[in-house]
Amino acid sequence: MCSYKQLLEKVQTLFASENFMGNPAQLYEPIKYTLSLGGKRIRPVLLLAATDLFGGDIEAACPAAIGIETFHNFTLLHDDLMDKSPIRRGQPTVYRKWNENIAILSGDAMNILAWRYFLKQPHKNLHQILSTFEKTSMEICEGQQYDMNFETRDDVTKNEYMEMIRLKTAVLLAGALKIGALYADAPDDDIEQIYNFGIFIGLAFQLRDDLLDAYGDVSTFGKQTGTDIKDNKKTFLLLHAIEKCDKNQQEELRRLFSYTPADPSHKIERVLEIYDSLDIRTDVENEIGKLHSQASTCLDAIHRSNNDKQPLRELAESLLERNV
Amino acid sequence: MCSYKQLLEKVQTLFASENFMGNPAQLYEPIKYTLSLGGKRIRPVLLLAATDLFGGDIEAACPAAIGIETFHNFTLLHDDLMDKSPIRRGQPTVYRKWNENIAILSGDAMNILAWRYFLKQPHKNLHQILSTFEKTSMEICEGQQYDMNFETRDDVTKNEYMEMIRLKTAVLLAGALKIGALYADAPDDDIEQIYNFGIFIGLAFQLRDDLLDAYGDVSTFGKQTGTDIKDNKKTFLLLHAIEKCDKNQQEELRRLFSYTPADPSHKIERVLEIYDSLDIRTDVENEIGKLHSQASTCLDAIHRSNNDKQPLRELAESLLERNV
Repeated sequence: MCSYKQLLEKVQTLFASENFMGNPAQLYEPIKYTLSLGGKRIRPVLLLAATDLFGGDIEAACPAAIGIETFHNFTLLHDDLMDKSPIRRGQPTVYRKWNENIAILSGDAMNILAWRYFLKQPHKNLHQILSTFEKTSMEICEGQQYDMNFETRDDVTKNEYMEMIRLKTAVLLAGALKIGALYADAPDDDIEQIYNFGIFIGLAFQLRDDLLDAYGDVSTFGKQTGTDIKDNKKTFLLLHAIEKCDKNQQEELRRLFSYTPADPSHKIERVLEIYDSLDIRTDVENEIGKLHSQASTCLDAIHRSNNDKQPLRELAESLLERNV
Repeated sequence: MCSYKQLLEKVQTLFASENFMGNPAQLYEPIKYTLSLGGKRIRPVLLLAATDLFGGDIEAACPAAIGIETFHNFTLLHDDLMDKSPIRRGQPTVYRKWNENIAILSGDAMNILAWRYFLKQPHKNLHQILSTFEKTSMEICEGQQYDMNFETRDDVTKNEYMEMIRLKTAVLLAGALKIGALYADAPDDDIEQIYNFGIFIGLAFQLRDDLLDAYGDVSTFGKQTGTDIKDNKKTFLLLHAIEKCDKNQQEELRRLFSYTPADPSHKIERVLEIYDSLDIRTDVENEIGKLHSQASTCLDAIHRSNNDKQPLRELAESLLERNV
């Protein structure tokens, strides 16, 4: 069994040894750039951890691990273009460093490149692996569309939000785990459990992200805090606050989330005051705890030893208790 | 054996019976819209024709036929966005009817949807079928990038142009034929011949397109003629003319292709005068004839009866002698 740290090193070595170049250079340079920016490499690590958990051959699953991270980075590349985000991982995004058309086309090529990696290694479960990848990919597009729809709606519910983040974020963690398990030819009931483990972890991961954006320590989080409030984003925090507060606060929140002042500091401060008066932070921490415990129940049900499950347990904890 | 007409009817029935909808509707409506606009459906017809030629089961290849057309339409959707083309098949393009972000995301989803269709039907050659599709898809992105690169270069050669249209246009016709042949489990040497047949047909098809844009009859072609000249596009006609003409004409052509007058009619007229003085039209007709004959040599070499090859022969003729 590999530890979480060993798996991460394995993934980092994989990415360092891939070239990602081809002709014409103008198509492949943005791909290489995007895939070299780093990041936490959560999805490929999850994939290999699942293969390892079920005693599979990690080497055979490595191309798929690169493939799933390539797909993830493709979605970030196109999302950054759609959101007009100038910076990703401290560097200019592709559409800013090059231009919009380069971002569209190199993203399209990355989407296809992901399939190339998945097809590199024949495997008896390949049809199921590819079908899982395809279903997951499509669900992520659906999640992104729901997210875009929510921008212009003011009646989004917490349930709708959870379904959106299930599609946009959780299914890729779950899909990575399921694919890893398929490489190890794990039994069906264990595959279902590890998939659901991924869903709960993914949901909790996104709620942690929402919390960090509002309450994170800039020096450790690395990103500006309060950007969701500044950008009038409907996060779990806001939707929960709107559900919990009285009519006056609801009106104030709706007003605060409907304008974009040049200096957002007072707006952010006032929103956080309302959140604090409603104990939103505690409630979301509790929600994360609940999801984490549901994830643990799924992991417990898997027919492997406790010791074998340690890397995934660690990984879940590092994702949910992180402050970065 | 099915005739070309029967195969086209089969493909049209296939598309008419697919729903293409899902949730959220905002993601799937542009997909349904794009796939319902029609078009010549050349690629799925080629795919099924190849399956039929080698005695395969057309029904088993039908999802792949939908998949290849879905992929083709995804590339048109994103190309229209990148080129800012307002009209496709007489209707507003997706980015105009909706917006740019919807065009990016629904295109991404169509790229994935193509894989869904390819994965619908298990097949003993599925790994090779999917690898062919992946390679073809990536080559089309490469071709599109070369095309974009050519816009800002003034030293593009005829050879570079032929390589660009091989990637951007020909490999998808060739790939469709190869995939169809793989569904019929055709022998390797025949697969190579039918692939090359597709490449030659594809190159000739694009040269015919270039010719029609300059010399087509608006009433039958359905599109405005002279748009390539108006838009300063480096077509085979221009590159051949530049290669063939004297220094004075070369300078005039470069000057004509470096500005965009409000009324392009005089510019178009003058370019066509130069083309005519150089017999460009005849040369390109001859080039198309040569490619057509190279395609026929490939088709002849395939180990099937002349009668069985009739639909593909017809299809090639209809593509290359078309005036629409």
